[in-house]
Amino acid sequence: MTKWFNETLYSGFRQSHEIKEVLFEGKSQYQKVTVFESARYGRILGLDGVVQCTEGDEFVYHEMLTHLPMLAHGKVRDVLIIGGGDGGILEEVLKHKSVRRATMVEIDDVVIDVSKKFLSSICGKAFSDKRTNLIVGDGAAWVRDTEESYDLIIVDRPDPVGPATVLFSAEFYKNCKRVMKPGAILVAQNGVPHMQGPELTDAVKLFQKIWKKSGSYLAVVPTYVCGFMSLTWASDQDITKVPAKTVATRFKRAGLKKLRYYNPDIATGAFALPNFVRQLIPGMKPY
Amino acid sequence: MTKWFNETLYSGFRQSHEIKEVLFEGKSQYQKVTVFESARYGRILGLDGVVQCTEGDEFVYHEMLTHLPMLAHGKVRDVLIIGGGDGGILEEVLKHKSVRRATMVEIDDVVIDVSKKFLSSICGKAFSDKRTNLIVGDGAAWVRDTEESYDLIIVDRPDPVGPATVLFSAEFYKNCKRVMKPGAILVAQNGVPHMQGPELTDAVKLFQKIWKKSGSYLAVVPTYVCGFMSLTWASDQDITKVPAKTVATRFKRAGLKKLRYYNPDIATGAFALPNFVRQLIPGMKPY
Repeated sequence: MTKWFNETLYSGFRQSHEIKEVLFEGKSQYQKVTVFESARYGRILGLDGVVQCTEGDEFVYHEMLTHLPMLAHGKVRDVLIIGGGDGGILEEVLKHKSVRRATMVEIDDVVIDVSKKFLSSICGKAFSDKRTNLIVGDGAAWVRDTEESYDLIIVDRPDPVGPATVLFSAEFYKNCKRVMKPGAILVAQNGVPHMQGPELTDAVKLFQKIWKKSGSYLAVVPTYVCGFMSLTWASDQDITKVPAKTVATRFKRAGLKKLRYYNPDIATGAFALPNFVRQLIPGMKPY
Repeated sequence: MTKWFNETLYSGFRQSHEIKEVLFEGKSQYQKVTVFESARYGRILGLDGVVQCTEGDEFVYHEMLTHLPMLAHGKVRDVLIIGGGDGGILEEVLKHKSVRRATMVEIDDVVIDVSKKFLSSICGKAFSDKRTNLIVGDGAAWVRDTEESYDLIIVDRPDPVGPATVLFSAEFYKNCKRVMKPGAILVAQNGVPHMQGPELTDAVKLFQKIWKKSGSYLAVVPTYVCGFMSLTWASDQDITKVPAKTVATRFKRAGLKKLRYYNPDIATGAFALPNFVRQLIPGMKPY
């Protein structure tokens, strides 16, 4: 009989993946961790019954949360990744030769361990890169206490339940701002607007109180089902104003090869928000 | 016990909607037709076990398949809709005052009947509009035989299985071209590239043989699960070259109110194709 991984994220709607083989199932200090071979999306990492990333479409989320802010900035040297235990963001960050140090603070070492063991197609050799500074610890505490500062902060957090809740608070954002260099950018994931609209509204509301400029851009991750995923950004510069030509030049110069989603067209197109998303952004109106 | 509508479109992956109430279940001459009240997406129309449209997100597909070509053209008077039995496209088309006649050729009168009865929030009063010319019949035969001609043809077809297969053939496209006025545009749906890539490739390959210009643009429909939906276009003019300002002016002039997805930003942004979609378009390369 076919075995299914039935995602439990939403009531009344679910996605299900056929399980070919369970590779890992266990409980960490923080969450239930599952890795299985699926029928359609390669290996899938599930946390507390929710799809976290899949070999089949991780490239969307990881490329869009990395290359878009990276090339909007243009001179990123020091990166902080909050969460991101699967190593997918880390791998994309390290593709940029300009990066001299990538600090990643992930709270759950079990996620890191299973990712290294079962999801090497996602993290590649990122964990053993000389520029990687891996911290197993609390990301919120890190931005509160560290004396380092960064050009780019990538908040690769799950939904605002469980251990990640603190990563959606005003205090966390303020501490992020504290460790950002001038011109630095923060990006974060903010759920699927069609299903989780308030998550986007709440985040931008806080961003607007803390940063000069902020907003949302969109990516489409097949297994974050039900439409667009909203990514959010905050900075003291307006990253939507970087000319398309500048991004295209930086893209060429960066020599990024074999990207499957991000390109200079998308770098601009991702800021085009449908009316129902515009309505979720404080201060923005539908056309 | 909770009852679920488990979509049977893909092997190894499925979406499921909780059924609150079955409103209609029957077999037409062509297909199994289901209408049910869902927990998250309002009423849903299913054909042969596949979600066809939902009250909760129909606006994406219907707006993008209508307003984008309509405003890229600028002077659409005569429209032909192939399929579209739920009336959603028809309703969007009739929002344009420039339209003097909308001919809709739908093969399955059961779909029309249940849509009028149960999905009036989708079709509105479109079926009783004076400009509507409703034909219950075979769309492929219509474009072969009619002496009318059109400024816009919208092919609102399901996947290339069952009664719709003929709507993916070279002969059908050639007959469409036969009934297109100079400068006219054809648009069609072409599946979810992440899951049904060859469907997009095959369509554009045929388009390129028949029309001077063609291509794809993207929309994101939550319940057409697994990422972007690819829409395709063909014409003797290059609709990607219509200046953004021109579209914005036409949009204002058209006086379209309460759109939930389409806007002038999206009109441009929808042509930004991720690399994995570019790879599916003959002659296009990833950056």
